[in-house]
Amino acid sequence: MTTAYDELMAFTRETEALGQVAGRLGWDQETTMPRGAAAQRAEEMGALESVLHARRMDPRVGDWLAKAEGSDDEAKAHLRHIRRDFDRASKVPADLAAELARTTSMAQGIWAEARANDDFAAFAPTLERVLDLRRQEGAALAEGGDPYDALLQDYEPGATAADLDAMFGALRPRLVELRDKVLGAPAPAALSGTFDESAQMKLSRQIAKTFGYDMSRGRVDKAVHPFSSGSGNDVRITTRTNPEDPFNCIYSTIHEVGHAAYEQNIDQAYLLTPLGRGVSMGVHESQSRIYENQLGRSRAFTGWLHGQMVEAFGDFGISDPDAFYGTVNRVHKGYIRTESDEVQYNLHVLLRFDLERQMIAGTLDVSDLEEAWNARFEADFGYAVDKPSNGVLQDVHWSVGLFGYFATYSLGNVYAGCLHEALRKAVPDLDAQLAAGDTSAATGWLRDNLQRHGGLYEPREVIERACGFAPNEGPLLAYLEAKFGEIYGV
Amino acid sequence: MTTAYDELMAFTRETEALGQVAGRLGWDQETTMPRGAAAQRAEEMGALESVLHARRMDPRVGDWLAKAEGSDDEAKAHLRHIRRDFDRASKVPADLAAELARTTSMAQGIWAEARANDDFAAFAPTLERVLDLRRQEGAALAEGGDPYDALLQDYEPGATAADLDAMFGALRPRLVELRDKVLGAPAPAALSGTFDESAQMKLSRQIAKTFGYDMSRGRVDKAVHPFSSGSGNDVRITTRTNPEDPFNCIYSTIHEVGHAAYEQNIDQAYLLTPLGRGVSMGVHESQSRIYENQLGRSRAFTGWLHGQMVEAFGDFGISDPDAFYGTVNRVHKGYIRTESDEVQYNLHVLLRFDLERQMIAGTLDVSDLEEAWNARFEADFGYAVDKPSNGVLQDVHWSVGLFGYFATYSLGNVYAGCLHEALRKAVPDLDAQLAAGDTSAATGWLRDNLQRHGGLYEPREVIERACGFAPNEGPLLAYLEAKFGEIYGV
Repeated sequence: MTTAYDELMAFTRETEALGQVAGRLGWDQETTMPRGAAAQRAEEMGALESVLHARRMDPRVGDWLAKAEGSDDEAKAHLRHIRRDFDRASKVPADLAAELARTTSMAQGIWAEARANDDFAAFAPTLERVLDLRRQEGAALAEGGDPYDALLQDYEPGATAADLDAMFGALRPRLVELRDKVLGAPAPAALSGTFDESAQMKLSRQIAKTFGYDMSRGRVDKAVHPFSSGSGNDVRITTRTNPEDPFNCIYSTIHEVGHAAYEQNIDQAYLLTPLGRGVSMGVHESQSRIYENQLGRSRAFTGWLHGQMVEAFGDFGISDPDAFYGTVNRVHKGYIRTESDEVQYNLHVLLRFDLERQMIAGTLDVSDLEEAWNARFEADFGYAVDKPSNGVLQDVHWSVGLFGYFATYSLGNVYAGCLHEALRKAVPDLDAQLAAGDTSAATGWLRDNLQRHGGLYEPREVIERACGFAPNEGPLLAYLEAKFGEIYGV
Repeated sequence: MTTAYDELMAFTRETEALGQVAGRLGWDQETTMPRGAAAQRAEEMGALESVLHARRMDPRVGDWLAKAEGSDDEAKAHLRHIRRDFDRASKVPADLAAELARTTSMAQGIWAEARANDDFAAFAPTLERVLDLRRQEGAALAEGGDPYDALLQDYEPGATAADLDAMFGALRPRLVELRDKVLGAPAPAALSGTFDESAQMKLSRQIAKTFGYDMSRGRVDKAVHPFSSGSGNDVRITTRTNPEDPFNCIYSTIHEVGHAAYEQNIDQAYLLTPLGRGVSMGVHESQSRIYENQLGRSRAFTGWLHGQMVEAFGDFGISDPDAFYGTVNRVHKGYIRTESDEVQYNLHVLLRFDLERQMIAGTLDVSDLEEAWNARFEADFGYAVDKPSNGVLQDVHWSVGLFGYFATYSLGNVYAGCLHEALRKAVPDLDAQLAAGDTSAATGWLRDNLQRHGGLYEPREVIERACGFAPNEGPLLAYLEAKFGEIYGV
């Protein structure tokens, strides 16, 4: 006999499959789509999104949910995910959802033009409109609770602004202090010269495999922005090349491999179900960050990488692996979050988190945002923003309504710090392995203790299960202070 | 006020967009998809097909069709297409449609294995099942009329077996006679040597542009089988390379450019509507064939191509353009339709057309098919089939239920013959242009007189409008007899 649960799962599986189709289109758009196809593609994607939207709101899902019972932990987790998505879709009035889709789809272009012209005033009215709609949405979702917390759930189920605030509040002063010390000390040499771009891609593909990326269920291509796309057995990544900066290509690849390996390593039994995707943005970012930073930028691994780079590019002017380690981890002044280093990155994020909470709470007007940004930047970084494209206009996120998203970047770093501490205990000779270019014990531990679970546990829970302790900012801070204290002698 | 027609068109436009999405997935599957993604992709594609199927059967379409009125020729054409699709979907019982989908999806694998083992008996029971289901479907669609005619409508609306039979009946004896004469005469030299595969791809891309393919709305990639995919502003082609046979790469490209240019050149006002796609398989094939053969294998164009090949590959042993023309058009014995030449190709098709009509009519049993195939082959080609993979098992079509499809290949050749005659009248100095590698007058004439109309006119009607006379086999026969008579001196 077919139960309500069976029917719900069959319907959900088809929806998940259609979601993957949308992902394939997204990949195609950024990699292989002819440029003249853009307008037509928007309509094709719109048609698919409208099918997905109708399925999310389908009244049968409500009926099935009312009757379905989860017979085991996995079934209960499936129902939890499906119920959360259905409730979310049901709480937002259709008019508001449509208006949000319309407004954000136009807003991105207006933001891009304002950024190109360094003109915040040209973007402000649009941002006000997006903010207003997201505040309405947050209120509808919160049902009397905190709208910002409600928005957070889209990216990090279970997270609260209060928890994040406590965590980030503890991070900020020590990061500012570390930043001051590091930038006051002599810096390691920067990389110079040019590096053949096809050799960069070849090396990146090899490094992707070194980190356990399964090429038979993925592929590496070039795109303007690095990303990972897809779940299960079709998880593709992109990277980019710059002849003067091979680290950009290499570390973008390792970062995206962290995301992609998470998706590839989820239990095959969860394929095309709500458990068959990474559980949250924060947990996802913890994987990309631990692959990229704690493993990829470690002294042990960079020693191996140095040899690979000499092989790929010949002598490039840095022959000492210790000096190379310093070069890889060089901290430098800059305005742009995405170009930042391990020391300063979270300061960029914390700034955005605090400002967007105030905007959603209604205590910071868009008209005051640029000034607030610049004041905060100078306080944390020690120098003034020179132009809006290096400040308040640098990120696309707010234009498309992503309020609540930024926090997951730093949460991911905090989680990566915790996982790294637990990993070091579980694999005592990790450095010896990394020094030989062998990541299998590290990536295997992450696969077995975290990645394979997909959406089975809630985000915080899956981190705590893997680490054996409640996630907190302590390990990340200890790691950063030790690492950069040693490199910079501070 | 929104009319039933407006609502129907909005719904149809979304369906067309989703159909394009399915096309993108198909392209991806043959070009970029990781091999480990196959099973997951089948499920993703299945989910999308099931959405498309439900839309085709949506009862609202029937309601809208009952009320909608076409105010002009274009609106009337839209309604004609939508009504035809809806009626077709409504006539076939759901059980039969599902059983056909299930059976044909398994049958292709069984056919491929039988072909690899040269074992027709292993495929026969499956073919019997597919044939039985398609006969049932044909009967359901025909509603008392001829089931084969009903199946033909899927590929060539308006065509009848009787019309095709008259046309093909006139072709066959003269093609057999030409084939006998040509193969009795001394053959031009065959190409020998090896040809760099990346140089083949580079030359093919250049030739694609030469034939008016718009690269900003398309792309050329390698795949196992050449194909064209998509409509409107995203029309991609594939080709293949073989180091010993650059003609395979070049002429596959030109053939697919014929298909793709047709799609690209349809009036932009028809984008993502039922008029925004090529109107039939036969008309489509007329475009690929006239590009490939009447233009691409002409003495004038091969003279230009010869120079391009010398530039791309250096001296390859044929220095005289007249000899090169013979080499390009060399007629050779062989069993395989897809490797055949202009003289023999239609004989392959006519054989299949006659046999499949008998199968659908119930006058030829699957158990007698292999013998019937071999007897007919020997009668038309003059020698015996050596093994089933070179005979009855060579094509995938019947395994997936494509009864009624083969005829459109020869119909396309007949149409191409007619269009070529009209084109020669319209562009008297065509050869001088082709000799300079300039196809713009030819492709422009085809665009303006045929391609731009998309689905506005019925297939036969659009050919007749372009040519100024009723399509018939005469021009094709005259062209083939003159061309090969001259090359072979017969």
